[in-house]
Amino acid sequence: MKLGSIEAGGTKFVCGIGDDLGNVHEEITIPTKTPEETIPHVLDFFRHKAVSAIGIGSFGPVDLNRKSDTYGYITSTPKPHWSQFDLVGTIQKAISVPLAFDTDVNAAALGELEWGAAKGLDSCLYMTVGTGIGVGAITERKLVHGLMHPEMGHIYTRRHPDDDFVGNCSFHKDCLEGMAAGPALEKRWGVAGKELSDHKQAWEFEAYYLAQALVNYMLTLSPKKIILGGGVMKQTQLFPLIHDHVLEALNGYLNLSELTPENIGDYIVPPALGDQAGLCGGLALAKTVMF
Amino acid sequence: MKLGSIEAGGTKFVCGIGDDLGNVHEEITIPTKTPEETIPHVLDFFRHKAVSAIGIGSFGPVDLNRKSDTYGYITSTPKPHWSQFDLVGTIQKAISVPLAFDTDVNAAALGELEWGAAKGLDSCLYMTVGTGIGVGAITERKLVHGLMHPEMGHIYTRRHPDDDFVGNCSFHKDCLEGMAAGPALEKRWGVAGKELSDHKQAWEFEAYYLAQALVNYMLTLSPKKIILGGGVMKQTQLFPLIHDHVLEALNGYLNLSELTPENIGDYIVPPALGDQAGLCGGLALAKTVMF
Ligand SMILES: Nc1ncnc2c1ncn2[C@@H]1O[C@H](COP(=O)(O)OP(=O)(O)O)[C@@H](O)[C@H]1O
Ligand SMILES: Nc1ncnc2c1ncn2[C@@H]1O[C@H](COP(=O)(O)OP(=O)(O)O)[C@@H](O)[C@H]1O
Ligand SMILES: [Zn+2]
Ligand SMILES: [Zn+2]
Repeated sequence: MKLGSIEAGGTKFVCGIGDDLGNVHEEITIPTKTPEETIPHVLDFFRHKAVSAIGIGSFGPVDLNRKSDTYGYITSTPKPHWSQFDLVGTIQKAISVPLAFDTDVNAAALGELEWGAAKGLDSCLYMTVGTGIGVGAITERKLVHGLMHPEMGHIYTRRHPDDDFVGNCSFHKDCLEGMAAGPALEKRWGVAGKELSDHKQAWEFEAYYLAQALVNYMLTLSPKKIILGGGVMKQTQLFPLIHDHVLEALNGYLNLSELTPENIGDYIVPPALGDQAGLCGGLALAKTVMF
Repeated sequence: MKLGSIEAGGTKFVCGIGDDLGNVHEEITIPTKTPEETIPHVLDFFRHKAVSAIGIGSFGPVDLNRKSDTYGYITSTPKPHWSQFDLVGTIQKAISVPLAFDTDVNAAALGELEWGAAKGLDSCLYMTVGTGIGVGAITERKLVHGLMHPEMGHIYTRRHPDDDFVGNCSFHKDCLEGMAAGPALEKRWGVAGKELSDHKQAWEFEAYYLAQALVNYMLTLSPKKIILGGGVMKQTQLFPLIHDHVLEALNGYLNLSELTPENIGDYIVPPALGDQAGLCGGLALAKTVMF
């Protein structure tokens, strides 16, 4: 079965054609300008491709409430021209196949569950640490949605005792995103994250915050796999630091074979789908409206 | 349809007969002694009652993994005689109707969703603040389970700046339960919670910790209703304090009509089922194996 996938990001839209086994056959990258400039290229790509459904994983915030008048909209984004844009409606008007719509991180979580690091499991949590911190979660094979879609990147963690950075979130100052997303790193240390590879304290702080958040998610959602992606996680030295902090914070509380010094490296992992995570996520979303 | 319900608690077992509309017709309270003393009384109660199914909400920790060898066990409880006790197996051996088994807080959440404060909704969160802090959660009409059943009562919150209490959790010291459960109140202030009604600072601290935890749950699970029960919540002056702290911590981040000073009183609420919450929870659990 031929399925379409759209990874709608703040800097680029990636569109792909693939199948229900997670294979991507063809893809195209379109820079994110205004909707009027960008969307026609997206529609062009899918013309005559005869896909059976398209899955869209979008940057946000988005309205996921099917009963809402603004379902399928990108809502109050600071990104110029995209605030209150009817993404799903605009695409649906031009393409009459079923569309599945969710956040980019939920799509990524679903892709990793279908074909990636969480394959064969019925729950997982996907966190991206990039320009923002976004989290997608699946329990019992269902994406977690609710009153609002969860905004787990903004939970409050404890401050590292040696960290006096005021925090960077415009809503909460020192919430997780305000302390640990890429721009927070850059503000705290004065250089971009990728220049900080050798800065031990930077990664000690970073692991401290991310591990605390993961522990809270674990105690709340108990995912069977945790997948960490995004630009900042390219600092792969973070993984063992995070593993140590998670075990220390739990202090043996969750007596599970996954949560031992030997096994935690298989529990908190990088994405298995790599560069294809976004497109695979869209394919996995598309599948949900087909079967 | 006649359904059975068991509220298996650390101090008492309450057993009831009711129906699939949440009505309790008959009930009995049995003190929790050893399993050998207590369980026969439970079985006696259900004899000749011709129930179609029984729902059991149990104190924990419990093993909820159906694939596990110890499914239905109370696992590593500090309560003498009950550690590693096969609760479901023992009852099933004597009574051959379908049994549904879950934590006491998950049962309570389900009961409140069926017939109580969250009636008509598809998600809610139930938190009890008593001897421990336990949380049950439902998203998309499904109880949240995972690798372990979630232990949300042990998440880490920030310390109140004026609070130097070391914390009372044997695993984590100053996790939520270690700072805000009934025994923590008693240790911090030197008198039992119910003697503290007029102690302003006690409830200021308490609301501060509980609100932080609720914000983290909201950002993670986005429940459509939050229900707070348990002995400590009998201090009803906590509700408005918690409402204020939640709004302050969110700082307008979740732009929802529920989360305004006018409406939050209908969002974070006491249980609607009152004393029947536990038994109704068991009936709601029993329903899940019938339909
Ligand atoms: N190798 C790296 N090491 C540390 N930080 C990085 C690295 N690469 C990118 N970043 C940071 O990650 C953020 C971008 O995240 P990314 O996931 O690439 O994009 P986005 O979140 O915008 O989709 C920026 O703040 C950038 O500084
Ligand atoms: N009115 C009250 N005000 C404050 N704390 C109370 C009150 N009643 C009970 N508690 C506290 O709640 C805890 C018992 O919680 P409860 O929910 O009644 O039982 P359990 O959690 O054991 O099922 C004790 O620590 C007790 O001190
Ligand atoms: Zn924030
Ligand atoms: Zn604890």
